Amino acid sequence: MPALNPTHDPARRSWVEAANDLRGDFPIQNLPFGIFRRHGEPAQSARAGVAIGDQILDLVACLDAGLLAGTSAEAAARLAATGGTLNTLMAAGNGASSALRAGLSDMLSHGGAISARARAEAARILVPMEEAELGLPAAIGAFTDFLTSIYHTERGGRMTRPDSPVPQNFRHLPIAYNSRASTVVSSGHAIRRPNGQRRRPEGEIAFGPCEHLDFELELGLFVGPGNAMGEPIALRAAPEHIFGFCLVNDWSARDIQRWESHPLGPFLAKSAATTISPWVVTAEAMAPFRIAAFARPASDPAPLPYLADPADQEEGGMDLGLEAFILTARMRERGEAPARLTATNFRHMYWTFGQMLTHHASNGCALRPGDLIASGTTSGPTDEARACLSELNLDPSTRSRRAIALPNGESRLWLDDGDEVIFRARAERPGFVPIGFGECRGRVDPAPAWPA
Amino acid sequence: MPALNPTHDPARRSWVEAANDLRGDFPIQNLPFGIFRRHGEPAQSARAGVAIGDQILDLVACLDAGLLAGTSAEAAARLAATGGTLNTLMAAGNGASSALRAGLSDMLSHGGAISARARAEAARILVPMEEAELGLPAAIGAFTDFLTSIYHTERGGRMTRPDSPVPQNFRHLPIAYNSRASTVVSSGHAIRRPNGQRRRPEGEIAFGPCEHLDFELELGLFVGPGNAMGEPIALRAAPEHIFGFCLVNDWSARDIQRWESHPLGPFLAKSAATTISPWVVTAEAMAPFRIAAFARPASDPAPLPYLADPADQEEGGMDLGLEAFILTARMRERGEAPARLTATNFRHMYWTFGQMLTHHASNGCALRPGDLIASGTTSGPTDEARACLSELNLDPSTRSRRAIALPNGESRLWLDDGDEVIFRARAERPGFVPIGFGECRGRVDPAPAWPA
Repeated sequence: MPALNPTHDPARRSWVEAANDLRGDFPIQNLPFGIFRRHGEPAQSARAGVAIGDQILDLVACLDAGLLAGTSAEAAARLAATGGTLNTLMAAGNGASSALRAGLSDMLSHGGAISARARAEAARILVPMEEAELGLPAAIGAFTDFLTSIYHTERGGRMTRPDSPVPQNFRHLPIAYNSRASTVVSSGHAIRRPNGQRRRPEGEIAFGPCEHLDFELELGLFVGPGNAMGEPIALRAAPEHIFGFCLVNDWSARDIQRWESHPLGPFLAKSAATTISPWVVTAEAMAPFRIAAFARPASDPAPLPYLADPADQEEGGMDLGLEAFILTARMRERGEAPARLTATNFRHMYWTFGQMLTHHASNGCALRPGDLIASGTTSGPTDEARACLSELNLDPSTRSRRAIALPNGESRLWLDDGDEVIFRARAERPGFVPIGFGECRGRVDPAPAWPA
Repeated sequence: MPALNPTHDPARRSWVEAANDLRGDFPIQNLPFGIFRRHGEPAQSARAGVAIGDQILDLVACLDAGLLAGTSAEAAARLAATGGTLNTLMAAGNGASSALRAGLSDMLSHGGAISARARAEAARILVPMEEAELGLPAAIGAFTDFLTSIYHTERGGRMTRPDSPVPQNFRHLPIAYNSRASTVVSSGHAIRRPNGQRRRPEGEIAFGPCEHLDFELELGLFVGPGNAMGEPIALRAAPEHIFGFCLVNDWSARDIQRWESHPLGPFLAKSAATTISPWVVTAEAMAPFRIAAFARPASDPAPLPYLADPADQEEGGMDLGLEAFILTARMRERGEAPARLTATNFRHMYWTFGQMLTHHASNGCALRPGDLIASGTTSGPTDEARACLSELNLDPSTRSRRAIALPNGESRLWLDDGDEVIFRARAERPGFVPIGFGECRGRVDPAPAWPA
């Protein structure tokens, strides 16, 4: 496990009472960063905040109130408060965010050096979450999507490559493609079903609304300082460039994907929209939940030296439970609870985020602060760990697809208009306070009409 | 042909004498936009300029001198002078750049309304090109690379897909993938040979310097206003979003590409570096050289309605000659001229830029001002029109590769360290003044050592 510090202390409790509910996502041990504004405030007032219980700590208000003056957290708080995004904080490296976390943990804890003063300013520095809108945490310059679950790869391959479901390169390198940053949106933003060209089952090639819309439950990484063009990042140094994590819904138009992807890979099937959870859980907050990398069967090839590092092998994995839910229009109308479709864990990923980042920069490709790197669908070995509909609806015995039954009697082969997809994530470990990621949520609106 | 205006008048001549040499790239009928600074000036003094003959017209200096005051070009010049990139001008739409071109054409012409005043300020507003460094014309938010030459596709496919060299979807949609914007550099920037993982001919999977480094001669488009997420762009409206064009060298690591690309397409093979020419030739300057779209054989499928428009069919093509040269280290040492490898023409492209742009946005993907969209390798039907080494070095009779002979006795299978690749482009049409693109040039430096 990476080095721990007082921010991880399970005995630490907050004067923000809701943060002490162990069922919640945002105890004082988490302190994820995000960008928010109060409902009704103009877009340019979006600013950095930290989730604590059911509140958002307003970093700009903390600075204005002089609460961090003279602490080592003040400089980092000023970086976080720059420009309405977290890019400047991300660029400063994990030393800065760690100093800020230390100061905020003190400020928000019972008995911290500045907690009494902070508490006196509570009305000024805390914004109830229900009164806020959360935006994208960063200006995302580039979005890269990996394919690093061997279970997802193998299940998908059974349909399209039955003789060799896992491509030969999968066990040698973390496969990836560049996806589209311009359509990454924050949780809660409705997305439009894409139109697109596809070959329909009867062979007709036609343009129209996607008929096979899917979700993919993924985990994303925000890049910290990054590298200059031409300068690779050694695996040993990769953790310095991992700022933190969020949930990613890589909405996928499977019919468009099947038709367009040969030979250059998915393009419009993936670029209509990508939804992310708005709170960035720092790498430091996840430190207690680090585990060894995936245990490869002895028959698998060892990673090449540039993708091998003892520390990455020992603690490059993460024990993070991930769930996907669906809330159909009918469930919403009737006040029913969302139905869980998937329960998986990030521990099943074949490659670590460190390996992904090192491979990505190995050719000299420049990674920049705020770039988003997603893991690929996080499917695990069991049936309940299938993390997209194209695995869930697959009948391996017949190599055909059939609708899956929902508990309220509805069924889904693919997503319908009005369906809302909701992801949650939670890290738990005996002896530590569990932390969560908040929601990643998006509703499917009908496809737009083609311009007249 | 799209509507012409006085900026296209072949009789118009400039008081910048070098602009009247018909062999040059930058007559007064061209007026491409770029971002420059004088040698030795700090990076933040980069500013917008216009190429005229062997000079750069400094738009900020023109504004400071009050030369455009009161003309319809002044507002557009202020947009161009914003922020050290052309993004703001691109965002304003082609009406703005057209107004600016009209004003600049008048200012730089013999007998224009403000040309006498401008000429009196020549020392202040003109910078000799040889005293300037040219940067990227825009902050490129996204870079998309298409595959729209059927000749390139067919020649490449003969090696890897001999039974069906042209993929079935090629004639139905313009194939593309998202590439990497963070490593796009301007002409003259040396690039490092990428390291990467590849399967060598004898089967060994190893990491090291790319052994099959190639260039691809492409044409790029800079996006103008673009579209909001979820809002497609009709083909009829596509020209409003095409600001202008540049040359693109899509450096390609073929050995990395072959190993990594299945199933998600090229990734690190393409993202080490992309070189572009620094002058953006506006769509308006190219108007006289528009021609009908590619004449498809009657046996090919007609484009689906969203990719069909009479005006695009009639004038969506461009007659633009494109050349690639190599200057090896030995040629450079001996003062020899670069050797021409390729002479092709953009008229051979199967899909128009309008169709590429409309297809790209058809799923609601947001295109933003300054996004770069490249055509793919611009190969034509003849042997001299092969626009990358992987076509040039191919022996179709044996389906093997052999080194190509250079006129000085050297030979190349792939690019060596020290090789410089130089692209040029030129549009010519009887009755019009020919225009050129300037150079797109990049030298290959050795691969970096892996970090110790």
